[in-house]
Amino acid sequence: SQACRDRLVRTPTVIAMCGLPARGKTYISKKLARYLHWIGIKTKVFNVGEYRRDVVKSYADKDFFDPDNAEAVAVRNLCAQNALEDMCNYLADEGEVAIFDATNTTRERRRVIYDYCAHTFCFRVFFVESICDSVDIIDANIREVKLKSPDYKTVPQDEAASDFLSRIKQYEKRYETIDDKTENNYSFIKIFNCGERFLVHKIGGHIQSRVVYFLMNIHVLPRTIYLTRHGESELNQQHRIGGDPPLSRNGKLYAEALAEYMDNENIPDLIVWTSQMQRTIETAAKINAPKEQWKALNEINAGICEGLTYVEIAERFPDEFAARDQSKFYYRYPGGESYQDLVARLEPVIMELERAENVLVVCHQAVARCILSYFLDTDAEDLPYTKVPLHTIIKLTPMAYGCTMECIPLPIEAANTHRDRPKNCRPDRTVEEALNEFLEPD
Amino acid sequence: SQACRDRLVRTPTVIAMCGLPARGKTYISKKLARYLHWIGIKTKVFNVGEYRRDVVKSYADKDFFDPDNAEAVAVRNLCAQNALEDMCNYLADEGEVAIFDATNTTRERRRVIYDYCAHTFCFRVFFVESICDSVDIIDANIREVKLKSPDYKTVPQDEAASDFLSRIKQYEKRYETIDDKTENNYSFIKIFNCGERFLVHKIGGHIQSRVVYFLMNIHVLPRTIYLTRHGESELNQQHRIGGDPPLSRNGKLYAEALAEYMDNENIPDLIVWTSQMQRTIETAAKINAPKEQWKALNEINAGICEGLTYVEIAERFPDEFAARDQSKFYYRYPGGESYQDLVARLEPVIMELERAENVLVVCHQAVARCILSYFLDTDAEDLPYTKVPLHTIIKLTPMAYGCTMECIPLPIEAANTHRDRPKNCRPDRTVEEALNEFLEPD
Ligand SMILES: Nc1ncnc2c1ncn2[C@@H]1O[C@H](COP(=O)(O)OP(=O)(O)OP(=O)(O)O)[C@@H](O)[C@H]1O
Ligand SMILES: Nc1ncnc2c1ncn2[C@@H]1O[C@H](COP(=O)(O)OP(=O)(O)OP(=O)(O)O)[C@@H](O)[C@H]1O
Ligand SMILES: [Mg+2]
Ligand SMILES: [Mg+2]
Repeated sequence: SQACRDRLVRTPTVIAMCGLPARGKTYISKKLARYLHWIGIKTKVFNVGEYRRDVVKSYADKDFFDPDNAEAVAVRNLCAQNALEDMCNYLADEGEVAIFDATNTTRERRRVIYDYCAHTFCFRVFFVESICDSVDIIDANIREVKLKSPDYKTVPQDEAASDFLSRIKQYEKRYETIDDKTENNYSFIKIFNCGERFLVHKIGGHIQSRVVYFLMNIHVLPRTIYLTRHGESELNQQHRIGGDPPLSRNGKLYAEALAEYMDNENIPDLIVWTSQMQRTIETAAKINAPKEQWKALNEINAGICEGLTYVEIAERFPDEFAARDQSKFYYRYPGGESYQDLVARLEPVIMELERAENVLVVCHQAVARCILSYFLDTDAEDLPYTKVPLHTIIKLTPMAYGCTMECIPLPIEAANTHRDRPKNCRPDRTVEEALNEFLEPD
Repeated sequence: SQACRDRLVRTPTVIAMCGLPARGKTYISKKLARYLHWIGIKTKVFNVGEYRRDVVKSYADKDFFDPDNAEAVAVRNLCAQNALEDMCNYLADEGEVAIFDATNTTRERRRVIYDYCAHTFCFRVFFVESICDSVDIIDANIREVKLKSPDYKTVPQDEAASDFLSRIKQYEKRYETIDDKTENNYSFIKIFNCGERFLVHKIGGHIQSRVVYFLMNIHVLPRTIYLTRHGESELNQQHRIGGDPPLSRNGKLYAEALAEYMDNENIPDLIVWTSQMQRTIETAAKINAPKEQWKALNEINAGICEGLTYVEIAERFPDEFAARDQSKFYYRYPGGESYQDLVARLEPVIMELERAENVLVVCHQAVARCILSYFLDTDAEDLPYTKVPLHTIIKLTPMAYGCTMECIPLPIEAANTHRDRPKNCRPDRTVEEALNEFLEPD
């Protein structure tokens, strides 16, 4: 409507999930929110099931989902309405994208959402329907996430499984897939069988195009992502940052130990990514797998501080050093980059990691922190202080709605390059105060 | 097949177009090839129509396309077979992606292509079908490109138009859209009505995913892209490269003249993009349109040469300066970037330019050269020597299969920052030889 088009400001977007139970709606909602949050878009998921569990303390059984159970339907619609209102208030306030995670399996439900979000609030609306008719996938989904659902806390596994299957049948009674005749004015994507096929209809703007691209690149195949930094370099030994130095003696030992470790892991079709700096290339050289060098994986560019020690930076650029401690994620080195810049240039790496299967990424401290924060969904403030020690392999394994992390330190000496946030971040602090967290080896 | 999976090297990809005449197959082929070539992928289009015109000197009329015209069908199949063989030889040699631009509107034609490319050569095959049932769009297409086709050189316009419509009818007799039941093992995308809807089936790998994303972002709405550099800066006056300087007096005059020019152009919904450097932000400040700052639009990072004059570079880093002249596109400044790096970080800008409508991009010399080379399809070797003078507006208007370029120099003095490739590019050359193309103002 004309009223909406006048809003020149970035229009907030509602992403509304649709689909029968166990079709990966919550999986997709959480993963999409993690990606949008990581690239800097304020995003929040509103799960109607959680609203329902707040109201209905203990879940009885599938009859609660019977469309003819008027009393239950009233409760469920109330929960949906509360979630809808909270969501739109979030977007009217400071949110940019909100994901409405519910079945939304009837044209009527979708109309209620569309009218409320698009007409009352002038938000963009994008429907994401997940369709899956493979009995095996649905059974696997039920085993992986549904049996652990709070709904079945006190219920034996097989009873829970059969109740869930009946719950799906209740929804199937009224299920109306998005119809591109009568719902032609909606923007939507239909995902068939975990991404085998997609139907994309009327993409509305930049964010929806990015969301579609992301949904087309993710997959649910089991795989492991290994993440590690280069072996200790000659500049690490001198506590200097940046540069393009070779490995130190211990760094070379790590390169061998890493190759041996990866060999023992016996990973099918492993691919190895390094940056274009010699210390990561040298570290991966002995690993028996195809290699690919990404400039996007190069360490953060410290500009005028390249090659300096923290002591030298504190002495020569006290104001810059203090500014960095005050807001480490957003601070950009003069002539260099910020962590925020790093996230922007790592986005294509993350997208390719979503496409890939078994990958080892050999990179750098700031780069590894950014990649880790994507998988562990850490906030921008904490990201630059994530501990990623040298000579340690981080193993990320996707599981349920997130992924598990395992740290495997290899027994080879290495300098400690981590620097915590000092208590005093004011520019007039002494050099000692600036470095109190960072003990210089004598 | 197992034989194919063993090819660890990057598997070449065949993109086979499908669709009735005037559905934008050649438009999409050329645009896609331009994009893939620009991001560094060796790409070539094989247009069967051109093979046919080589063999059949003068086109008679639509009967040539009658599926029951055995003689003509034989000629057409021969042309298609020749094009297919040339294409696979190209991919077996040095090509990475080839685009097979023909109607391919029957299951039989697609089977011939698939068997030859996927089984005989182990290439990946991706079909791109364009479907359009809007009479208006087809008429517009015929007017825009078909009437100028060599087939109708000696034919009056209305006769040509009606012959072409009959040609479409000939194809419609046998047209079989890609069927996701019997052709289920193919990877393909169906584009409906210039991108209103897409059906994407079994994306096979990184390149196909990028191609799908590109096809979903391009549109055919009429619009104009304006490209200009920042106004003259204080460093330009001293013939120094890089840095983040303010505008000179003349630069400020240009900022005003630019705002006036854009105002007179009276462009609907204009948006203005600048880099995050003050000289582009200052240049766009007076323009009456929403602004967006992209770090990706920042000028090439000259690393250790930032802020120097060409004389200083020639004196201090003769070897580096000579290396740059020998291979200016691939040369990377120590601690800085190459034109190749610039293209990689400008890709998201190009993708957003494809999504956008009327845009003014205010950027820098090397950045403008990269963007221009995308629209004008110049080769990597020539890209770094494209002339983009200061205080000049470049107007790009999409037309038929490419776009027209118009240069509008505004009458305000500015330093000449262009440096041609010197005759002598050897490291042992004198400073004068290094600079002979570049006359220093006294
Ligand atoms: N596109 C998909 N289609 C089917 N299953 C998927 C898809 N994506 C992820 N999954 C799987 O779905 C499971 C998670 O299901 P999830 O809880 O998200 O379903 P849901 O649709 O939210 O169910 P409910 O309606 O009960 O909340 C995971 O095992 C995950 O691997
Ligand atoms: N997806 C699309 N659907 C329909 N028309 C399009 C599409 N994309 C571009 N066009 C328009 O198609 C016209 C160019 O047609 P083009 O010559 O590429 O058709 P073609 O399919 O190659 O026809 P032919 O089979 O005769 O070679 C341009 O005017 C362009 O704007
Ligand atoms: Mg759920
Ligand atoms: Mg054509």
